Amino acid sequence: MSFFRSRWVKAPEHVSELEPTSLPAGFRAAGVAAGIKRRGLDVGLLVSDEPATVSAARFTTNASLGAPVVVSKGAALDRLRAVLANSGNSNVADGERGLATARESQVAAAQALGLEPRCVGLASTGVIGRRLECAPLVAGIAAAAKSLGDDSDAFSTAILTTDRGPKRACLEVALRGGTVRLAAQAKGAGMISPAFATMFCFVETDAVIGAETLDLLTGVTVKRSFDRISVDGQLSTSDTVFCLASGASGVEVRPEAEDEIAFGEAMDALLRQLAIDIVADGEGARRVGRVVVRGSRGAVEPVARAVANSPLVKTALHGADPNYGRVLQAVGQALAGRGLGSSPDLYVDLDVEDRRLVERGAAVDLDGDALAAVRAAVAAPEVEYTITVPGAGSEAEVFFSDLSHDYVTLNAEYTT
Amino acid sequence: MSFFRSRWVKAPEHVSELEPTSLPAGFRAAGVAAGIKRRGLDVGLLVSDEPATVSAARFTTNASLGAPVVVSKGAALDRLRAVLANSGNSNVADGERGLATARESQVAAAQALGLEPRCVGLASTGVIGRRLECAPLVAGIAAAAKSLGDDSDAFSTAILTTDRGPKRACLEVALRGGTVRLAAQAKGAGMISPAFATMFCFVETDAVIGAETLDLLTGVTVKRSFDRISVDGQLSTSDTVFCLASGASGVEVRPEAEDEIAFGEAMDALLRQLAIDIVADGEGARRVGRVVVRGSRGAVEPVARAVANSPLVKTALHGADPNYGRVLQAVGQALAGRGLGSSPDLYVDLDVEDRRLVERGAAVDLDGDALAAVRAAVAAPEVEYTITVPGAGSEAEVFFSDLSHDYVTLNAEYTT
Repeated sequence: MSFFRSRWVKAPEHVSELEPTSLPAGFRAAGVAAGIKRRGLDVGLLVSDEPATVSAARFTTNASLGAPVVVSKGAALDRLRAVLANSGNSNVADGERGLATARESQVAAAQALGLEPRCVGLASTGVIGRRLECAPLVAGIAAAAKSLGDDSDAFSTAILTTDRGPKRACLEVALRGGTVRLAAQAKGAGMISPAFATMFCFVETDAVIGAETLDLLTGVTVKRSFDRISVDGQLSTSDTVFCLASGASGVEVRPEAEDEIAFGEAMDALLRQLAIDIVADGEGARRVGRVVVRGSRGAVEPVARAVANSPLVKTALHGADPNYGRVLQAVGQALAGRGLGSSPDLYVDLDVEDRRLVERGAAVDLDGDALAAVRAAVAAPEVEYTITVPGAGSEAEVFFSDLSHDYVTLNAEYTT
Repeated sequence: MSFFRSRWVKAPEHVSELEPTSLPAGFRAAGVAAGIKRRGLDVGLLVSDEPATVSAARFTTNASLGAPVVVSKGAALDRLRAVLANSGNSNVADGERGLATARESQVAAAQALGLEPRCVGLASTGVIGRRLECAPLVAGIAAAAKSLGDDSDAFSTAILTTDRGPKRACLEVALRGGTVRLAAQAKGAGMISPAFATMFCFVETDAVIGAETLDLLTGVTVKRSFDRISVDGQLSTSDTVFCLASGASGVEVRPEAEDEIAFGEAMDALLRQLAIDIVADGEGARRVGRVVVRGSRGAVEPVARAVANSPLVKTALHGADPNYGRVLQAVGQALAGRGLGSSPDLYVDLDVEDRRLVERGAAVDLDGDALAAVRAAVAAPEVEYTITVPGAGSEAEVFFSDLSHDYVTLNAEYTT
């Protein structure tokens, strides 16, 4: 099965898929079990062996930050050579002790890899608010450094928490100057949204690319992927994207050249599919919804977020219920006080999968066949809602999961 | 058992409880089964027989309004004599046809009671987006008008949807000039929050009180009750509060007199307890949380709402898990971009039931006894969280329910 499973992501023609655990030239990775989780891999290490490696990074905007995010923000973010990630405990809310643990782990990874500490990016996920013990983490780093290899299998597994399975891909991208590889490993299933997901995504390429160009492409593609998803509307303390380019292919991606666009298209498709994979893996999720809102500039974003984050819309999606009333309720909540009018003068249209359900705020009378078609559509794995609100000129999309019993079970029991 | 069950509401000393279904002098009420629901009472009628009756009203701020709200907003809101409420179908998103149904029902109630249509307030709750048939509603109105009596039992039952049971009380309030009665019937369990609940509350008194004073007291007490609760963060299309004063007791409540304060205290306690009853009845809820946030003016309200609406905090409350990490995550999400700093310089304190769990953003190390005490506290029916964020001078509180499997079941299956 193709990595590009969603109908909402098209693989560009110049992109082909390699083994999902392959890595671009110049990279090695490892994952080990350090005992931070009760069982399974929990410390991952990724390194580029090329001294000229450049990088870009993005972090959560939450004001409560995990210590690894605080320390990473002080690193050489355009010159990272390595990523150290752990799962099981996210090292949040542990004050000076947590910061000291993060710094020690950065130094330990740097020493094991022969790098400067400021060239190591950190990422940590798992339970928040419980102390992360330093000793097992440092021992795990040493073990990981000894088991580095040329695939991402153990690394991509070591970063998972409540995920159903690893999220990873490796693409070959045909550029004018030759082919490059582009790979990524992501994690995320809960505490996802709204301005960024509770997620990691580590991206590697062997293209020769400037740090500024890489930063620009990272910014644009993150905005179109991990910025547009919601499992539960909760912005994590630890979201991290690191993107590293080793240059080992010798194929250059020049700014403002055709190959920059071609490379950017590949990166966009890669990150969008991974983002949708995170939503599809939303804790207990059965379906992925996509809401597209068109209308005035100030309205489309809050309306899309309100629909995507509504527990009533999400439970209806879970029950395969075409409940347009709840969509209208969420739209009206988001539009309250925006001066766009209210019922009966609030003109809102709603289509589900190209079928008009609400026109100018009033439900359309559907015959039996039409209703059956809508019911079948909302029982599919992907369901699209298109909403028109007053005004014109802007559009916003958000991908979201349904809300299930399993979400409640996972989050009532996954605990301190 | 006293109506004032919550430790967060104190009954004033000058207030005593009567039979919860009693009504103040001058009022009659009825509830009938009109077939709008599959079974049970679904049309309620309340009327004051006093021509000098004054009233006040408050409605949802949602921009998608139910037709009964639209029509009620055009009524004589300071001179209402009657309330017509139905459950089972809330008459939302039915365009002109829905407005016509609402108007016809208003006229039918007025005719049956010998009033002008503009003296009848409407309220409608239930599934949204399905057509409300006019004929059964009108037949129900006629039947209800014939069965009016001096208690609120059937009326308070006819307004329920997913509620576990009726929410109602009748108080005797001792004022300097004599005693008056104050009663209310409420409903609400889901689609509750953030600026007002998906709820109805109908309040009656036989005090002699000016329409302006009644409006002022209604505004203040609603702000401290139904404005401060969240089951699922979803603002309804149909929230309605009607408050009617018949004057039949002959006891006057003068503006800016001591009795206004005494009457207001009684109304405040009544509405706060009913609001907490709605949260406690939150679909599938097991516990009620109260979050109190202290800090700078712009921060306390969004932080309190973020914590109360977080599905991660709510599932932790459901699981009786003192998960301060998730509280910090929600606080940090609400504070993002507010210029109050971020970790490690974001100073946030969190107490659960007077026990400090987080100090200046870092978890406090608790010994076994302390941890056991916290675990016992979060397993109680009411759990209090006190949060301090940067700044000073302001305070906000929100009452919220946990998030349960039953919420998902109810909302995946309660449907169009």
